[in-house]
Amino acid sequence: MSSVMKLHELIKAAFEHDADSTIKEAMLYSLGGKSKQLRSQLILAMLEDYGVEAMFGYPSAIALEMIQTYSLIHDDLPAMDDDGWRRNQLSNHKQYDEATAILAGDGLLTKAMEVIVTSEYDAALKVAILNELTLASGINGMILGQHYDMQAHHLKHNNDVLKMYSLKTGMLFGAALAIGAHLSNQGYLVDNYRTIGQSLGVAFQIQDDLFDLDKSEAQLGKSKSDMENEKITIVTLSGRKAAIYLMTNTLNDVIESLKRMHQHDYVLTLIESIKQRGY
Amino acid sequence: MSSVMKLHELIKAAFEHDADSTIKEAMLYSLGGKSKQLRSQLILAMLEDYGVEAMFGYPSAIALEMIQTYSLIHDDLPAMDDDGWRRNQLSNHKQYDEATAILAGDGLLTKAMEVIVTSEYDAALKVAILNELTLASGINGMILGQHYDMQAHHLKHNNDVLKMYSLKTGMLFGAALAIGAHLSNQGYLVDNYRTIGQSLGVAFQIQDDLFDLDKSEAQLGKSKSDMENEKITIVTLSGRKAAIYLMTNTLNDVIESLKRMHQHDYVLTLIESIKQRGY
Repeated sequence: MSSVMKLHELIKAAFEHDADSTIKEAMLYSLGGKSKQLRSQLILAMLEDYGVEAMFGYPSAIALEMIQTYSLIHDDLPAMDDDGWRRNQLSNHKQYDEATAILAGDGLLTKAMEVIVTSEYDAALKVAILNELTLASGINGMILGQHYDMQAHHLKHNNDVLKMYSLKTGMLFGAALAIGAHLSNQGYLVDNYRTIGQSLGVAFQIQDDLFDLDKSEAQLGKSKSDMENEKITIVTLSGRKAAIYLMTNTLNDVIESLKRMHQHDYVLTLIESIKQRGY
Repeated sequence: MSSVMKLHELIKAAFEHDADSTIKEAMLYSLGGKSKQLRSQLILAMLEDYGVEAMFGYPSAIALEMIQTYSLIHDDLPAMDDDGWRRNQLSNHKQYDEATAILAGDGLLTKAMEVIVTSEYDAALKVAILNELTLASGINGMILGQHYDMQAHHLKHNNDVLKMYSLKTGMLFGAALAIGAHLSNQGYLVDNYRTIGQSLGVAFQIQDDLFDLDKSEAQLGKSKSDMENEKITIVTLSGRKAAIYLMTNTLNDVIESLKRMHQHDYVLTLIESIKQRGY
């Protein structure tokens, strides 16, 4: 079983003891969409590189996947990006309704925390992981990034757009590597890994913007609301060529930084798969 | 300074190091509305009754107030109860907009967890409190209750309505007393306190339904959407007299149970103030 499928199975199992409801069904619906689980897989790859059993990473990977999925459900809402299609299926509020999608998102955020709280990690590790998750996804992180994104048509400078990317996308990637470091008992390297992860997230976001320009909705598996909403991206601001250059440079910097940290075969393979997506 | 005002001050201070943004402003706006802070004050009253310094309870009280406020912001959204007025001021999405209100709610839920994670509690206590918070507010608790509430027009039996109340309102009251017990080092009594708190929440909810029937929006300080939405409540289902009887009985049971647990002067004073609201 691939580790993506394995994680899907474990995510389902995490709901086994929860009351059956449309909300639970809606949460599982969005978690079950076709996803690369990139952020969660980064945690697991970190553990492989440090020789730690994958099992030890699963609660964290599941929690991160839940937070990423909650953010997509809420971002897709009509009042936000108004996207009808996500992960090769109808977005949550289209499949169910807006009220259900709001509650399913709330439920996933709460459940993510619960998964860590009720895991078998010791208390200190739980606190360290929850600290990474709240830092990355809160109002100085992902939520602030989504807020800036909603106002992206005002942005005029590359640096402002890159700051938005770093918050909206970079922070969760940063949390992935930081949590991986915590789980691998590399606490003193956590800050370094968090920073590298943030850069990786920015590179990934630039690549996503390029895809948005070049690919069809069917190829993307999601709506292209950013173009309809005339959002400013690095690509619209600086052009395709400059965006590719920036993405490639950032990815290469990330790879070099990781090589200096440790023998990162698995993490680098994952990043190679990002590169292989194109450009 | 009253403890309600004191908590308002501490809540503001909790945002001191957060990036300034409309989201932060919107979070503080709803937290600053006129609120009895009943759930949070219950935590502080528990500590007073057990001779523990109030300071020790503040992070928990702040976190609970944030969760309660996030739930109100999301419940008020047009796709949910569509309430324009809350805590004697415009509801969050009316004062700002829907996108901001969604993100402000998400931000408050995340921030609540962060407040505990970054508090000075030891790791085991942090985990115990976060466990209460996620249990009470998740998809087996408050979120499930709100989901049932959205479909309350289908409810036909008192017991179904009471179950909904227990989830929607009771669970956070239960968490308040349970957290108070944790903080007062009464870990072995936590389950009892949680159960008593849930009953208190149910009684409070019945009283709220009675107010909704008898008072104006100006007196309530919030919209009366439940009546417009023709929601089923204990009052609409069983009548005013039966609802008052049930509320009074439940409150008296709660008071008797608390008296058997400990010398609960402060908690009982708080409950007396609930009784004094009427009926």
